Amino acid sequence: MSIIAVGSVAYDSLKTPYGERERVLGGSATYFSIGASLFTHVNLVGVVGEDFDDADLNLLKSRDVSLEGLVRRPGKTFFWKGEYGSNLNEAITHDTQLNVFAEFDPEIPDSYLDSDFVFLGNIHPALQGKVIDEVGKGRFVACDTMNLWINETRDDLMKVLKETNLLFVNEGEAKLLTGEPNTIRTGRKILEMGPEMVCIKRGEFGSILMDRENIAMAPAFPVEKVIDPTGAGDTFAAGFLGYAAGQGSLDFSVCREAVKVGTVLSSLEIENFSVERLKTITMEEIDRRLVEYRKIIS
Amino acid sequence: MSIIAVGSVAYDSLKTPYGERERVLGGSATYFSIGASLFTHVNLVGVVGEDFDDADLNLLKSRDVSLEGLVRRPGKTFFWKGEYGSNLNEAITHDTQLNVFAEFDPEIPDSYLDSDFVFLGNIHPALQGKVIDEVGKGRFVACDTMNLWINETRDDLMKVLKETNLLFVNEGEAKLLTGEPNTIRTGRKILEMGPEMVCIKRGEFGSILMDRENIAMAPAFPVEKVIDPTGAGDTFAAGFLGYAAGQGSLDFSVCREAVKVGTVLSSLEIENFSVERLKTITMEEIDRRLVEYRKIIS
Repeated sequence: MSIIAVGSVAYDSLKTPYGERERVLGGSATYFSIGASLFTHVNLVGVVGEDFDDADLNLLKSRDVSLEGLVRRPGKTFFWKGEYGSNLNEAITHDTQLNVFAEFDPEIPDSYLDSDFVFLGNIHPALQGKVIDEVGKGRFVACDTMNLWINETRDDLMKVLKETNLLFVNEGEAKLLTGEPNTIRTGRKILEMGPEMVCIKRGEFGSILMDRENIAMAPAFPVEKVIDPTGAGDTFAAGFLGYAAGQGSLDFSVCREAVKVGTVLSSLEIENFSVERLKTITMEEIDRRLVEYRKIIS
Repeated sequence: MSIIAVGSVAYDSLKTPYGERERVLGGSATYFSIGASLFTHVNLVGVVGEDFDDADLNLLKSRDVSLEGLVRRPGKTFFWKGEYGSNLNEAITHDTQLNVFAEFDPEIPDSYLDSDFVFLGNIHPALQGKVIDEVGKGRFVACDTMNLWINETRDDLMKVLKETNLLFVNEGEAKLLTGEPNTIRTGRKILEMGPEMVCIKRGEFGSILMDRENIAMAPAFPVEKVIDPTGAGDTFAAGFLGYAAGQGSLDFSVCREAVKVGTVLSSLEIENFSVERLKTITMEEIDRRLVEYRKIIS
């Protein structure tokens, strides 16, 4: 089963304790599409500017990713400049230039409508809502969000949550959304807001997946050298949904496994800058690391 | 196999989001002894003052805990007053009165010397070193420490670590000890300091157990109502060492299981103030929660 992925395609300038990179490929839809294309076909929806490099376009084309929904607009591609200190859980933003992304108005090509899964990256909830309306009922919708939308556009976000099957959310943002300090109760409150399932992401501490009856906790894979954590959350979602879509099921037992795949995929992704590592990952590497991961958590 | 437990026996005045308690039973050796006595015989070494209540003494006597090494001295029992905000990972200390604990000079009764395991609670490393000398070689020594000793008495602590088989340490303190921001590399550096095994405690995020060849990661059990986190670390160590001593082995495969038992025991302990919950826990409850825990992490 294929996945529609909607989100940002960007250039990032990054500084981490391991070095710096200027204007490298980034964006939630980019990380998600490259990651999920290991498991299933991805239909990308996004916007880039005139400066978007053909090499980057070719990278996406070389994967199992449809680009009919990736439009090019006059102007520049979304640009983010950020830095990570030794606390790799949190980025310091130095510059955000929305550029063509400011007018992003996602349109879903008809050819995408055979997808059963939809991933809504971290964009304005009004746009997430628009996509949900466009694709119609009956698909599995997963979405991500952030503190900006929780604080500034809560009503829009609450509407989206009612139509969402699975919410991916950082722990701090989950607590902000619910006003609840206990993580498990936070999860339960989010489930009351609409989603059937919530995955609370805890960065280097792993993740918690909950539905109304089950809880699954997964530690992060122990990575000794985190070169660049950018994209870890979207890559986690890519592994999760890619695996589940590949299995064609969202039973909790499948999702327990999907969490492990997401954990392992993101642990590989952060081993290099931008999508450098992600674009070389093979299924053999994922399987090898899954074996190691199972041993560590057994 | 029995365990010698050395540490504080105290009265605590506590405030948490769920209420307040005045002068309730506390101390690292107290939590450890009550917890570990579920699994094996414990030989307690500590000091109390003239104010120490017979009811509290009787509670310890009612467990499988020898009190020959618990001495009573003129003066008052160690007293700590603390508070937890909604971040239950960190206590705010309002008052510390060492009282008789200031002159604590642990003496190991001869009758204790058949113990194969030694737990050194979080006391001055010079005293931990003294106990290690007293008990002699050939026993399994586990110890705990804290930022105070890492900052103020590092040389003493480094000597203790050379004689320690297993170090229990909070993640922040482990990083302080090694100057290393990455948790796994922190663990490796600690193993270079002497211990064969290190257990890095991450509070609500669980724990990581490492030896030179293996890593085991265990999420915390998801507790929805943490009434009082005091003693969680010592209770975790109690479950860990109590289980391992009961098995008579410290193979990594046994320790993987021991981490789970420690995790589950401490998750029960924090469900009430002081030792209120701990003293009523049964093996049946532990087994039930272990089943639930295995499901959550499977």
